Amino acid sequence: VGSPKPGHTEDEIVELIRRTLGGGIGESALRDDAASVAVPGGGSIVVSIDSVVEGVHVDLALCRPSDVGWKALMGALSDLAAMGARPVGALVALCVPESAQSDPPLALGVMAGVAEAAAASGCPIVGGDVSRAAQLVVTVTVLGSTDGEAPVPRSGARPGDVVLVTGPCGRSAAGLRQLRAGMAGDGDSLSLAYRRPVARLEAGVVVRQAGGHAMIDVSDGLSLDLHRLADASGVGFRLTDIPVADGATLEEALGGGEDYELVLTTGAADVDRLMEQFSAAALPPPIPIGVITAQADQRLLGPDDLVRRGWQHRLG
Amino acid sequence: VGSPKPGHTEDEIVELIRRTLGGGIGESALRDDAASVAVPGGGSIVVSIDSVVEGVHVDLALCRPSDVGWKALMGALSDLAAMGARPVGALVALCVPESAQSDPPLALGVMAGVAEAAAASGCPIVGGDVSRAAQLVVTVTVLGSTDGEAPVPRSGARPGDVVLVTGPCGRSAAGLRQLRAGMAGDGDSLSLAYRRPVARLEAGVVVRQAGGHAMIDVSDGLSLDLHRLADASGVGFRLTDIPVADGATLEEALGGGEDYELVLTTGAADVDRLMEQFSAAALPPPIPIGVITAQADQRLLGPDDLVRRGWQHRLG
Repeated sequence: VGSPKPGHTEDEIVELIRRTLGGGIGESALRDDAASVAVPGGGSIVVSIDSVVEGVHVDLALCRPSDVGWKALMGALSDLAAMGARPVGALVALCVPESAQSDPPLALGVMAGVAEAAAASGCPIVGGDVSRAAQLVVTVTVLGSTDGEAPVPRSGARPGDVVLVTGPCGRSAAGLRQLRAGMAGDGDSLSLAYRRPVARLEAGVVVRQAGGHAMIDVSDGLSLDLHRLADASGVGFRLTDIPVADGATLEEALGGGEDYELVLTTGAADVDRLMEQFSAAALPPPIPIGVITAQADQRLLGPDDLVRRGWQHRLG
Repeated sequence: VGSPKPGHTEDEIVELIRRTLGGGIGESALRDDAASVAVPGGGSIVVSIDSVVEGVHVDLALCRPSDVGWKALMGALSDLAAMGARPVGALVALCVPESAQSDPPLALGVMAGVAEAAAASGCPIVGGDVSRAAQLVVTVTVLGSTDGEAPVPRSGARPGDVVLVTGPCGRSAAGLRQLRAGMAGDGDSLSLAYRRPVARLEAGVVVRQAGGHAMIDVSDGLSLDLHRLADASGVGFRLTDIPVADGATLEEALGGGEDYELVLTTGAADVDRLMEQFSAAALPPPIPIGVITAQADQRLLGPDDLVRRGWQHRLG
């Protein structure tokens, strides 16, 4: 590994960590949305960890402390959804600024939102930690189960597969735009999509049960996350259509993160059965958006290359 | 719950979270060093989460990025040790300041130390996350197993139990003092105790197998952590002796955190067997330091009250 330039992207840092520390770090670590761990005495669990940082992922001028807690747990749960796992429990590490001597304390506001998201998703909070820090950081670890079945990986897409997404995209990004413009009411559906996103846990389980080949959640943007799925699978894709949510732009649908819709692939012959299983679970039908191709550098939307856009940190 | 004053201690915030959010947060959450979670399909795992924050828990002027990574993983593993659990895997969430454009990147230095601690403790890293933040924060979740047996709780101490500690205390605090004074060499054993502490995983397993009643790790100071064990158990204690490490002061032994020695209690009739099992495992013999009493407000060192001293955040 060569000496890296300052200011790497998140994906580059993760790749550097994987390549330089291969000996001490598990081979599958940092590769999928979540990892599957064998439990001594039987069974296995799916685990993932995710941080929400004030001023980076969230702005307390645009959402309440309880929204931050909700978003932190749901964002982590979305990683379970992307593996087809049901939640078993979560742990929450809070870092709270010393200066935030609010009443009620900031930590309680955040944890109230965590508790609401926990109740809404049937995921008990089983542990936690509280520290002082310069800014609010909420780190959540989620534990899940795939009922003894294999999780749905990012890397399983095959040429000829149909690519589907569980719903129209761009709602969260559009809601953030409205909040920034001061144009969002409290119950507004787009701003709610930003402040109170919902992990597609049931849809993920249905995809796993239906034998879906590959899956990822749209956390950093449909384009970037679909590129990641194709990278992991060593395949290309040709998209024919992008479902844009009402009130959102195509740009927001492609590049906006935190929608937590699921993108999945399945054999062309299995699409009808998948649709039936979504219907049987009273879930909206997933939307076909294109096909997987064998040529790994072919990444098309219509006739054009799909720009690898989306939200990534630049890190030191 | 009344309206709290600004500037709570960590224990007060945890208690407030527990009392106000009882509905959404599991009853046992935040109570022990780690929680035991039943895994669908059989078995159970012990889980804990812990953050290390630059400028709060560690100072990069006194230790290397790799030391921070090592300390973060070992501190979390110590929570498993305190339950009598063996490590199964760990997840690491890094928050890295944007300004830290060092070469090699700060994130890689931290993860190198994480990997060294993982190798030293036989704990594979199974997942991770990287974010940007104002300061370095390393949050580690550890997963462990108690081989189908019940974990050793904080709350199991009984009147008449003997209190023991796995080794002399104060080494880490003395090492930090030497580092601050610029008096520590690289291989100095006290500064190593601070920069590279070791979780007492084998000792914890022996205590569990020997049927120890209660256990906690010395993460925030022998005094504070022993008070916490007594609080959880609803008992008091009379200490006769405090084992002070060579080069440390009594103050450092009582109030210095991060030694990661284990404090445990066991029936008076079981002490000899416990000693034999430590000896059979080639571990140094635990040191008796006093007895558990029925009177919950009796917290004595010799004739004097043992001050509840130790390291706690004050939080907003």
